[in-house]
Amino acid sequence: MIDFPHIAEICSPTPSKVVMLVVDGLGGAPNPETGRSELEVARMPNLDRLASRSACGLTTPVLPGITPGSGPGHLSLFGYDPVKYLIGRGVLEALGIDVELQDGDVAARGNFCTLDAHGKLVDRRAGRIRSQESIPLCEKLDQIDVPGLEVRIFPVQDYRFVALFRGQGLSEDVTETDPQILDVPPRRVDALNPGAEKTAAAANALIEGAREILGGREKANMVMLRGFSQMPELPSFGQSYRLNPAAIAAYPMYRGLAKVAGMTVIPTGHDFKAEVETLQQHYQEHDFFYLHYKPADAAGEDGNFDAKVQALEALDEFIPSILDLNPDALVVAGDHATPSILAGHGWQPVPLLIHSKLTLGEGVEAFNERACATGSIGRIPATQVMFLALAHAGKLIKFGP
Amino acid sequence: MIDFPHIAEICSPTPSKVVMLVVDGLGGAPNPETGRSELEVARMPNLDRLASRSACGLTTPVLPGITPGSGPGHLSLFGYDPVKYLIGRGVLEALGIDVELQDGDVAARGNFCTLDAHGKLVDRRAGRIRSQESIPLCEKLDQIDVPGLEVRIFPVQDYRFVALFRGQGLSEDVTETDPQILDVPPRRVDALNPGAEKTAAAANALIEGAREILGGREKANMVMLRGFSQMPELPSFGQSYRLNPAAIAAYPMYRGLAKVAGMTVIPTGHDFKAEVETLQQHYQEHDFFYLHYKPADAAGEDGNFDAKVQALEALDEFIPSILDLNPDALVVAGDHATPSILAGHGWQPVPLLIHSKLTLGEGVEAFNERACATGSIGRIPATQVMFLALAHAGKLIKFGP
Repeated sequence: MIDFPHIAEICSPTPSKVVMLVVDGLGGAPNPETGRSELEVARMPNLDRLASRSACGLTTPVLPGITPGSGPGHLSLFGYDPVKYLIGRGVLEALGIDVELQDGDVAARGNFCTLDAHGKLVDRRAGRIRSQESIPLCEKLDQIDVPGLEVRIFPVQDYRFVALFRGQGLSEDVTETDPQILDVPPRRVDALNPGAEKTAAAANALIEGAREILGGREKANMVMLRGFSQMPELPSFGQSYRLNPAAIAAYPMYRGLAKVAGMTVIPTGHDFKAEVETLQQHYQEHDFFYLHYKPADAAGEDGNFDAKVQALEALDEFIPSILDLNPDALVVAGDHATPSILAGHGWQPVPLLIHSKLTLGEGVEAFNERACATGSIGRIPATQVMFLALAHAGKLIKFGP
Repeated sequence: MIDFPHIAEICSPTPSKVVMLVVDGLGGAPNPETGRSELEVARMPNLDRLASRSACGLTTPVLPGITPGSGPGHLSLFGYDPVKYLIGRGVLEALGIDVELQDGDVAARGNFCTLDAHGKLVDRRAGRIRSQESIPLCEKLDQIDVPGLEVRIFPVQDYRFVALFRGQGLSEDVTETDPQILDVPPRRVDALNPGAEKTAAAANALIEGAREILGGREKANMVMLRGFSQMPELPSFGQSYRLNPAAIAAYPMYRGLAKVAGMTVIPTGHDFKAEVETLQQHYQEHDFFYLHYKPADAAGEDGNFDAKVQALEALDEFIPSILDLNPDALVVAGDHATPSILAGHGWQPVPLLIHSKLTLGEGVEAFNERACATGSIGRIPATQVMFLALAHAGKLIKFGP
């Protein structure tokens, strides 16, 4: 797709099947006390055995040193240039709560904040009020009428919500209202160009409506909006690779990312067990499956080394069920590292394995950072993983005569 | 900067400090008799121990097989595309003798040559006359009056000098006068576009003045000019990375390169010991330090394997003093290889190490070409080193939501 403009010409639809298991936050970093990473500590007999029979390597999600968010991390694995195709914060937040976005919609990330009697910010997160308090407030804000537009408010969690603007002639080119510092009033929304004035006016009308509704409160008496964004226009994943792709993800944001890429999203349950069952049930219907595993990232974000180890061990137990389907190419990759020592995403390269009948193993004895560094794939941009996946499934013909 | 247009957005100013030690000509090649490179032979207990606790890799200054000059080698490490941002020969020569260049100045590299009675070249370097002979000639040439412009001549070494043209409306788009062959006269300077005619006329006036002054001499009776160039407009290093950067370099050319990038140049002494003392004295004033070590390159250029080994061993003794400052990220890199067997710059990949509290070591047992090839950083373009340096110092936030 991105790195190779001729990809569609050499993609050949075949009955062969590719399963891409994306382990969120797969890569880690050594625990300072033991010198061993989460993957090195985890007991993963199935993944280790699979690595020994696979082609292994490391992926760079964006560039060395650059820590990707979930958007760039996934788009990159799907083959999209993560620098060219940026998904805005508002859109990602909306995707994360399963809000259906239409072409032209503008989504913003909102949060409740607290102003003092002079209208100056005293708490940018309104004391992190909990959902039971914020949901009724969101319902009130959702009643605000902005003439000529549909404006909706969807609670996310605690002090966070999504503001959705729907109508003709909207634009994402407006400024944010969060001044990022205290003791000043929130900013107004300004249009960055004449085509964005309607959006700025609508956002300011929403804010004024919120001021009226919330004004009497001691805390959470105002809202701030940022990350105004529209759905990016991405080339279709399916058309680009001549695939009939499906996404199976328990978390809404990842279903949303797959939708942005034009994949069919198959409804599934709330955990990875449900995802694997969904894969089994629908295995005949598609030739590419994106399967998302969340718990490793969540534990890493919490800075909980042991929980990340457990999440990886829990994943390992599902590997035989996936292998039983006998996919022509099974890719195990990560969208980015989430080292527990960082308690957040990291820039570190991410382990990769690709298993097919063409891979016979290359002496990589385990599925971890150090072992994969010795594999035959080497260290590649994540945007090139799809080429290898398709090649291993016999879906790419020769390039050039 | 170059590889990643969003870098300034994700750079976060912090109190953390980065020290980038650039070892000029760091990389080498095996001595054919022993099969071991300069770095492999050198006893470097401090660098070897540091490597074992660092992230290691190899950098490619421009592209595999391409041997960089000092300009591309350094710009690349600073994160500038070395192909896009070329520093001309005249400018580099001027920087190398501490000539202060102003915006719009055109600098050319000049050299004395010898013509026969028919005005044809018999020696393009005038028998490599020594400085004691060329300096008085340069002083005479410096008196040549070119109306409407300031034209200065600065001796460099032996038969080489710098010609500086200062005034309004100058251009670097003019041809060189060295025909590169003998038995023909030197060429005239021609404008490559109408905007360069003033510069061409000035250069030809200088040459005619030189012909009058030098004409009676048996050798060194003419000059040739090449590498006409102006200071390139580079994005500011400090602004690009949101740093307050300082350069400490004993040799003028490297101070000049740092100035081109917009770094603050801290005055220092004439050797690396003085540089380290300068670093210690000014450590609180900046958050990024570029520190240049020259002797390894000089020995390699001389083709002196043992001298290069000694230069590396001498460097090693300074490492504890630098580590004592406890920089948040210490980068040890090279601008290019200077293998003694080439007696000049080489294209070979250059060892790299980055040490921070996040790097715990990865089994790289020594700081040399072969050992660093096994490190976790892999082989990266030198333009990406800054991203890793900033990431390790906690100066980069997440890219994309």
